[in-house]
Amino acid sequence: MNRVGPSVWRRFSSTSSSPTFVAKPAPSKARHHVQIPDTSFPLGYSLTGVHCGVKKNPSVLDLTVILSTSSKPTSAAACFTRNAFLAAPVLVSQDVLEKSAGHVRAIVTNSGCANAVTGKQGLEDAWAMVKATDALLPKRTKSESNEDIHETVVMSTGVIGQNLPISKILSGISSLVPSSLGSDFAAWERAAKAFMTTDTFPKLRARTFSLGGQTFRMAGMDKGAGMIHPNMGPPTNPGQLHATLLGCILTDAAVSPQALQSALTYAVERSFNSISVDGEMSTNDTIVVLANGAAAGETKEIEEHDPLFPAFRKELTSFAAELAQLVVRDGEGATKFVTVSVEGAPTFTDAHRVASKISTSALVKTALYGEDANWGRILAATGSVPLSTPIDPYRVNVTFVPADGTTPLPVLVRGEPELVDEARAKEILSQEDFEIKVDLGLGSESAQYWTCDFSYEYVRINGDYRS
Amino acid sequence: MNRVGPSVWRRFSSTSSSPTFVAKPAPSKARHHVQIPDTSFPLGYSLTGVHCGVKKNPSVLDLTVILSTSSKPTSAAACFTRNAFLAAPVLVSQDVLEKSAGHVRAIVTNSGCANAVTGKQGLEDAWAMVKATDALLPKRTKSESNEDIHETVVMSTGVIGQNLPISKILSGISSLVPSSLGSDFAAWERAAKAFMTTDTFPKLRARTFSLGGQTFRMAGMDKGAGMIHPNMGPPTNPGQLHATLLGCILTDAAVSPQALQSALTYAVERSFNSISVDGEMSTNDTIVVLANGAAAGETKEIEEHDPLFPAFRKELTSFAAELAQLVVRDGEGATKFVTVSVEGAPTFTDAHRVASKISTSALVKTALYGEDANWGRILAATGSVPLSTPIDPYRVNVTFVPADGTTPLPVLVRGEPELVDEARAKEILSQEDFEIKVDLGLGSESAQYWTCDFSYEYVRINGDYRS
Repeated sequence: MNRVGPSVWRRFSSTSSSPTFVAKPAPSKARHHVQIPDTSFPLGYSLTGVHCGVKKNPSVLDLTVILSTSSKPTSAAACFTRNAFLAAPVLVSQDVLEKSAGHVRAIVTNSGCANAVTGKQGLEDAWAMVKATDALLPKRTKSESNEDIHETVVMSTGVIGQNLPISKILSGISSLVPSSLGSDFAAWERAAKAFMTTDTFPKLRARTFSLGGQTFRMAGMDKGAGMIHPNMGPPTNPGQLHATLLGCILTDAAVSPQALQSALTYAVERSFNSISVDGEMSTNDTIVVLANGAAAGETKEIEEHDPLFPAFRKELTSFAAELAQLVVRDGEGATKFVTVSVEGAPTFTDAHRVASKISTSALVKTALYGEDANWGRILAATGSVPLSTPIDPYRVNVTFVPADGTTPLPVLVRGEPELVDEARAKEILSQEDFEIKVDLGLGSESAQYWTCDFSYEYVRINGDYRS
Repeated sequence: MNRVGPSVWRRFSSTSSSPTFVAKPAPSKARHHVQIPDTSFPLGYSLTGVHCGVKKNPSVLDLTVILSTSSKPTSAAACFTRNAFLAAPVLVSQDVLEKSAGHVRAIVTNSGCANAVTGKQGLEDAWAMVKATDALLPKRTKSESNEDIHETVVMSTGVIGQNLPISKILSGISSLVPSSLGSDFAAWERAAKAFMTTDTFPKLRARTFSLGGQTFRMAGMDKGAGMIHPNMGPPTNPGQLHATLLGCILTDAAVSPQALQSALTYAVERSFNSISVDGEMSTNDTIVVLANGAAAGETKEIEEHDPLFPAFRKELTSFAAELAQLVVRDGEGATKFVTVSVEGAPTFTDAHRVASKISTSALVKTALYGEDANWGRILAATGSVPLSTPIDPYRVNVTFVPADGTTPLPVLVRGEPELVDEARAKEILSQEDFEIKVDLGLGSESAQYWTCDFSYEYVRINGDYRS
């Protein structure tokens, strides 16, 4: 059987006691940071990203503040990591959302320090960030009347086990005046830049969409490159855990808090909970959505039973997937962007578990780096997942699908290996984007995952970086 | 926070389009292949390893045959991979064990080709290996009277999706005459060498032990370096899946087939199912045990209710752990041998799952390669496992324990990070062997896992090798 890996990155000195490895040239990622027209951003938000001093380099932004300036109620929903070691900002944001009954008007985020495993001081610091940001909002009768109700969700990302330089952060927040914030592309870009840790480009997207004949806008940003395999649930869902991924999505549609949470939970399962860089769930993963109803003409909030709800949920899911995929694009050391589609599963959960296992397999991911059509490893990973209906090997198909629309390459058909055209396999696998499709032949459910390869660079970054 | 990774392996050319990485010098593994006195090997076994032609290089052994020559009944037990894509030799061996009611007198193994995903032809080939090896055994009335009963277990390891060169293998088996086989160290060593694929040393161990005042012997060999995260169960246990690990343990004690299976299932859970090189379960993982009662003086078979049974099970468990650890020592690209001990768990299963998660975490394993005391990643991995009793962060302790008996280094005490002495941390983590101890503070159960680090060499081996 021929090896299809490129020879360029093979070890060239096997006799030395310190072997040397040459990496493949990595694709440039800068092209994923794109200019967006000001008119694509949702109405009624004012935001910025500044340097407050969590990070040493004064030219690097580390604090994001986002305010809803809508005259209508702003609904909020969020999904948080299921890790048992919840970071302070996660605990505080859950409390804010609960006590405000999902009515939140601001988001404050710092990068450079995760405020995780920081005990009582960490909670005090996270609350201080909430209160300082609350103070930037125009007063509301409701919040004035109850000191327990806050209107800011807080997120932090960076090093674990260190306390925040809280006085620098609070100075940064309180120094903001209305003119410091903006709503044009430059303001959104600054906000997205201040999210970044090991990210190589700011992750910002926006779109317009129609519901019931009216136009709305949605914009969002996220961050993450390593410790990425989120498993997030709504605040009331106790449990497990995943990676440092932070994100927010802001829309000028009007959606009730309950409907917004329902749509987000569904969307997150099919977007952020369907990506993996390294199979690691963080203590801080958080995705927040605000819906402020600022789109002109719109008045009634969309409820879950509303005829417009499925369309809104679909829009949110597809937008969340777009943001989530940017994180995989920027995966630490990644040179490939691979879609793993599992079809013919008995249930969505079965399909999702198989896709997750393939996407996190070290052997599959090193083969992707080596551009090797190693379907044996895909099969071994698939077979390692216990499903609700046992796999019948003679029903399974595995296909490599190129992203350029040319003919797919079947490698396993009904459990029998195909005689693979290695030249064609190399053609597909040497592309940056392609799809691995596994059809289990057991049912009609499907799920997708997005993953990247495992490279020398991943080992270097994570052997040498204390997260 | 200081970084404690060695600078030698940092990327030295970040501007080139093909960055170059320098690996740490890897420890020599040859010392794990040791000379064993002939008297340590169990009585009543005759075996060899030969070159039959599965592998091209004529100086490389690829076929192992082991015969029990005991005049007493030989009991057999086995644990097989829980992968849904069971290789032909696994299916055939399960059948042999069932129909013979656990009375098997021979083991035949080839390396170089896994005979996995090979359809009907694969099954025929595996059966042919069984029958050819059966023919080497002295005839028994019982087996002569029933053609459905076979006395050989078959194992294969190597490339997936290719058919065996079966005529070469059958010629290799049938060319064996009694004088080709032996029972001294050289014979055992040849047998162990013929197991090897990407292994860098043959994995062979033997010991003597006492039960009820009598002396017995136990010897075993195994193979495996990649696709190693076994999850094996007894033949009747359907289900999941793990890595290509093959092993056999041979003793001259007399144990009934039922008691042998019970002891093996227990032992495998605490040995082979507690190691991980890369978190990958194979289609071929198999561990076989034979007990032939050939030790002089011994007559009665040990049954599960026997007072001697717990002592036998303990001996088998500790021996299996010794063999399993050799596989981790030889893990692809490994420079570290790390014991992960999880204590204070509500149940053994909880402890085992947390230990498994830490042992397979790409971020933990790259930090081990970088010799970085990154307890944040250990914590994130720990918190990602849903347990029967939820983790209380303020009860959790994490400690690095050096293998040289010097003072352990606590890094997290009751959920609070310690001020870590980085010089001491570096001292411990720069050793080849050490232990990560996690005390959950939730109960009294514990489990251990053995794992290695993730290196550039692992990426090279698996980006460039079609398994």
